[in-house]
Parts: sequence; C-alpha cells; structure tokens
Amino acid sequence: MYLYSERIYTPQGYKKGYLQIEEGKIKGIHENIDDLYVDYSGKVIVPGFIDIHIHGWATGSFWYEGTVKSLENMSKELVKVGVTSYLATTGTDGLDKINNQLKEGKKAIENYTPEKGADILGFHLEGPFINKEYKGMQKEEYCINPSIDILEGFFESGGKENIKLIALAPELEGSLEFIKYANKRGIQISIGHSAAEFEEIRDLKDYGLGGVVHTYSGMRGFHHRRLGVVGAVMYFDDLYAEFAKQTGMTVKPEAFAIMYKIKGPEKIILTSDSTGLAHVQEPFHHYIRRCTFTPDGDYLKLNYDDGREERIYKYDYDKVKDLELSYMDSIKNIVTNVDASIGDIVKMTAENPAKYIHVYDKKGSIEADKDADFLVIDGLWNINDVYVKGVKQEI
Amino acid sequence: MYLYSERIYTPQGYKKGYLQIEEGKIKGIHENIDDLYVDYSGKVIVPGFIDIHIHGWATGSFWYEGTVKSLENMSKELVKVGVTSYLATTGTDGLDKINNQLKEGKKAIENYTPEKGADILGFHLEGPFINKEYKGMQKEEYCINPSIDILEGFFESGGKENIKLIALAPELEGSLEFIKYANKRGIQISIGHSAAEFEEIRDLKDYGLGGVVHTYSGMRGFHHRRLGVVGAVMYFDDLYAEFAKQTGMTVKPEAFAIMYKIKGPEKIILTSDSTGLAHVQEPFHHYIRRCTFTPDGDYLKLNYDDGREERIYKYDYDKVKDLELSYMDSIKNIVTNVDASIGDIVKMTAENPAKYIHVYDKKGSIEADKDADFLVIDGLWNINDVYVKGVKQEI
Repeated sequence: MYLYSERIYTPQGYKKGYLQIEEGKIKGIHENIDDLYVDYSGKVIVPGFIDIHIHGWATGSFWYEGTVKSLENMSKELVKVGVTSYLATTGTDGLDKINNQLKEGKKAIENYTPEKGADILGFHLEGPFINKEYKGMQKEEYCINPSIDILEGFFESGGKENIKLIALAPELEGSLEFIKYANKRGIQISIGHSAAEFEEIRDLKDYGLGGVVHTYSGMRGFHHRRLGVVGAVMYFDDLYAEFAKQTGMTVKPEAFAIMYKIKGPEKIILTSDSTGLAHVQEPFHHYIRRCTFTPDGDYLKLNYDDGREERIYKYDYDKVKDLELSYMDSIKNIVTNVDASIGDIVKMTAENPAKYIHVYDKKGSIEADKDADFLVIDGLWNINDVYVKGVKQEI
Repeated sequence: MYLYSERIYTPQGYKKGYLQIEEGKIKGIHENIDDLYVDYSGKVIVPGFIDIHIHGWATGSFWYEGTVKSLENMSKELVKVGVTSYLATTGTDGLDKINNQLKEGKKAIENYTPEKGADILGFHLEGPFINKEYKGMQKEEYCINPSIDILEGFFESGGKENIKLIALAPELEGSLEFIKYANKRGIQISIGHSAAEFEEIRDLKDYGLGGVVHTYSGMRGFHHRRLGVVGAVMYFDDLYAEFAKQTGMTVKPEAFAIMYKIKGPEKIILTSDSTGLAHVQEPFHHYIRRCTFTPDGDYLKLNYDDGREERIYKYDYDKVKDLELSYMDSIKNIVTNVDASIGDIVKMTAENPAKYIHVYDKKGSIEADKDADFLVIDGLWNINDVYVKGVKQEI
C-alpha cells in the first residue's frame, strides 16, 4: 500500500513522496512509484500520539474498571483523538487490585490486533510507591515504600516485558535498590507524587531516574533555596518533563510555557493522564465542572452544583467523550500557548515518549521498519485519517 | 594614549589592536600606530563593571552613613574589585533620611573626578515604595505607597537627572500613575520587594516595568497556578533579571543556573547589593558569619557566636573588605556555576546595566566616543589594571 503526501514528517524533517506500508510496517518513502496510491495531497502525515500516562478515557477506564473490555474500549476510542498507542496506567491501590488489573491488561495485550484500535504498549505503574504528602488524587492508605518483591509480583501478573514505566517518590526508603533493579531490567522510572529534595534527585538520578510525572503537580512549588522536584527538572537537562493534558486549570499556560522555554520540545513528553471519569466507582465531585458524578450501573448520574441533573449511558462515546479534555484538544491548546510547530509537537507526542519507554525501535517516527502508526492531518491538527500498524481506523 | 591587546572585547566580539584614549574617552581601536603604547599583550580588555545596586561596600556606606565621604570611599575601593561606575543606592527609610542622602549624593556627583575612582552614575532608590510583606532587610514602618509628590521631592534633593532607577512593588496603590510619570522622565522602574501577582505585572509591564530586583529574593516562590514575580520574570522575555552577588547562600547556585538558562546573558544584570556592613548604625547579627557587628565610633566590634571578639577600624580596607563578598568574587562564582564566557559576563556586568539605566551612549562597552572605563584582566578574571575615564586607578 502507498500513501502520497508532500509533507510526511520524519526525524529528518518533511519528506515528499509515496509512503509504502507492508504487513503493518513502514517500508520507506519513494519519490516515484508505478502503482496505485491513496492521495493525501495537501495533508500532513505525522506519527501517531503515544500516550504513556493514561488510566482511562471516554468509554473505558482501566483504572476504575480494570477489565480487558475497558482496554478494548479505550483502544477503540483513543484513535479518534490521535492516540495510536499507549501505556495502560494503574494507580495507587491495594496490591490485589493492581495485580488483577495487570492480569486483565496482559490478556488484552495478548488479544490485541490493530483492528481493535490503539496499540497497548504495556503498563505504567503510577505508584503505589509514592509519598502520601503529595498523593494528589491517589489514595493515602495504599502509598507504600518501593519493594522489589512487590514488583516481582507485578511481573508475574502483568508479564515482565509489559511493565515499561514506574512513577515513584525517590525519597522513600528502598528507592535506590529498587531503581537499580528496575533500571537493569529496562524499566523506565519517573519521579512522581514526591516530596524529594533537589539533592536527593541529584544523587539518585544517574541510577535510572529519567523524568518527572505531570510536572508541577504532586510536588512542592519551586523555591530558590529549596529547589525540589520542580527545580531538578528545570536544572538537569537530561530529565524529561511529562505534562498531563493542558486544560489551563491545573497548570497555568504560562507555567507550561516557562518549562517549554527551559526544556524545549526535545525534553517534554505530552500525555493525557485521563482517568475515564464516566466509570468512577464511587461518587466524585468534579470541581472544575461543578458537578458530582455518581455511578449507577451502566449509567452515570451528573448532579450539577446548580441543581441540574443528567443521566448518561457510560458507553455512549458521544455522551462521555467531553467529560475529560482529549489528547488532541490538549495539543491544540499547546499549539496556541507556546506556538509549537508540527515538528515540535511530534517530538513531544511521539518521538520522546517512544524513546523514554524504550520502544523507539518500533514506534515514534515514520521510518522504515517501524510500525505504521500515523495520523493524516491538516496543518491545524484536524484529523483526516488514522492508521495503526497499517490498518486504517474507524474514527 | 594607546594600549595594545590581542583581545579587546567589543560588542562585535574580540578585536586586536591599539586602543586609543583621549580626554577620558575611547577614540577607537587601530591596527597599526606610530606612537608609544602600553603593552597589554596576553591580557584581555573588557568594559568595567557597572553596579546598579550597591548601598555601600568596604570603607563606605551610602546607606548607613549617607555622606559625601561615604561615596568617596566607595568610589576609591570599588575599582579594586572591577567596578568602574555605579548607582548610589538608597533604602527604605524615612523621607528625611532619604532626602538628606540624595543631597549629599548630589554633592558627591558634582565633585566627582575620575582620579577619585568609580564614577557615580546617579541614584537607585530601593523603595520606599515597597510591600511590607516582602520587606526583607528593609524597614516596615517606612514602606509606603508610590507617590509622585514624594518623587518630586527626591528630584529636588538629588537632582532630577540623577535618579536613574526606582525599585517598587507594582501592586501598591498609585503604581500605575507613578510608573507612567517616571517612565516619561526616563527613569527605569524595577519590580522589587513585591507580592505582585503575575497578572498585575502583565497588565502594568508595558507602562515601564523593565526588570526585577534581586530576583527570587523579596518575593514569593514560583507556583504553577500562582506565578507571581518569579513567574513573570521567567515568562516575559523582555524583563531583565537582576541578581545580587552570588554567594551561594541566599540563592542556590542551581536556582541561578535555571534563570540563566531561561534569560541567558542577554537579560541578566549582575549587581552586588552590598551595604557596607562595617558601617552599621546599630548592632546587627550576621547569620552567615555567625557574628554580631556593633558600631563603636570609628571602629566595628565583632562578637562571634562562638565567643571570640574582634575590633577593627572601619576605614581600614584590608580589615573590612571581606565582610561582604566583592563584585569580582561574585563574578568568579558565576563563571564556575554557569560556565559563562568573558563575553557573557561583559553583557551581564556592563552592557545590560548600561542599557537598563539608559547610559549605554556613554558606558557599558568599548566603542568610540564612550567613557574609557575598562579592566585589564587575564582570562580568569584576575585584575591587572583598571581605568576610569582614561585614568589608571590605584588598585
């Protein structure tokens, strides 16, 4: 199969030509062909988004539901907002719950085919090895110190090769041994939900701390005598700054812009950190929407602070998709805030996350022998078509 | 007079040649001459430091003593540490005291000749229009709202043309009118000792806020939802970040390095913010030195926390010069912290401060028709000779 575009974004910049896809892989870009092709003249082809921090979205929530079905729903819907692969992300919960999630996740990974939507690259464990002091939306009673034994249990449940990323608080007891152990096994470690001092990060960093989860959130503010996690990610050029979806609410656009000045597109990773709010398991008050979400079987009840009520079907995409800002809508916000080029966005959404979780050999750029995961867009990030492993998706 | 060097630092980079000085001015750099010259082969010639925030140092304190003599002593000693011109800086005191200081300062400016040492460029008023909440070492009872009437009184005392820079808290009532008034008269305004919100600075900035005094100090820490003064100086490319002497104590070297990444040498101004501690008027406990300084006529008593005692003559340069880190020693710290080139340091110590206070037509670079204020150094910032308006100084 061949696709023609004048602007195919590659690590060497834009190329014009015929993108050849065979058996789900990119074969190359040709100047001339003597065959049929899909004509994407006037469109831009970019690598699909890789969301390495997503608990759930729209009709599925791996975090709240923890089922094979929840991941299938996520995969099916995520392609609609440009995400072609992701890490199924757990939270800080009881070990039984996490182990069950990983078992279900493993099945979903094994059963995955590109016709099902976005590719499941493995797991991101957000905790449970985090600091209570900066737990954010995570549960205090489940925050524990890093433990290699527990990690080995996770290996058994989820498959060792599937655990790609762990967010932890490096100031907790046992971190050094844990980080060394994980690093040796190719698992990336991020700093998250942490009260770490700058000096602690400096001392542990080179054992395998690669970046910071949802930068600015789940950590102290920056102070010029107590730099903390924010100071560390500002200071150390090699640390990646992960940012959850940019709604403009939790992190002011100007605070994002400051970090963008410091790190540049080379060292920022954009994620959604969405949870799949339609699938909450207990009543949840959303302070931005001014509304309480209450589960009700297959339905979600919305009780707005102003007295209005609503009841929606949890698996109706059109009803639930706007409960959380989508990955693509976050990108559109960022393009406005920091005037990022398409190439800059590609770095932050595809190249960097793929490199970070060590899958850049098969994902993250449009190059020969990589998976054919890409988006066909116009210059303003409106999606025309989405391909995962060469399969054109229903969007 | 001609001086030869292979490395004369100019805004166009290094030039090799014979620097011609006539009547205190730079005439030009010549490739060949047929005249006698001072041979500075192997040395570097750079513009002298311009310290726009200095209350006192070593044997003189304009802030504590407020006399013509105090400025004469400062001028005489500052050249030894590379400062060839400065702004005599007042503090937040009663209006009578400030007006008297300005009257004395005006006399010192009128009596100044280059044989006396560093040139007095005018005044920097640090307050009294600052916020009590972030007064730092300033006195709370004298913190007042900006007042054009009071400023006009200062004009009368110190000479309108001599007031070059005012540090104020822009969130205080009356700021907008005051800033407009000062800006119209060519006075630079810095933000300092301020609780201002990011949004307040954004709204007032273009009326004449040019930068931030002793960045990080006298203001809130940075937070991603409440960016404040620190966030404003990080965000707005056109704001200058002034840094007081870098001792590594009040601002951690890494916090300076972060701002250096953001602003670059183009938008940082280095000052000393020294006060002339030998001349304190009442007992003062120095928490870094762990010592209480007590005035005793022409002497200063030092009572160390560990019980030792000392008594030194306040006007003995060798005895008092190390009470506060010198401008040059701060530069040496910075060169280590951020790996700044000589050209980078020249920007932060001469070009930027001269531009900031609007004296770049006569100071801040080695160019024809400017004052012949320069240092002859080796590549490691060791001073060989210092010239002010073409007069070689006793150092």
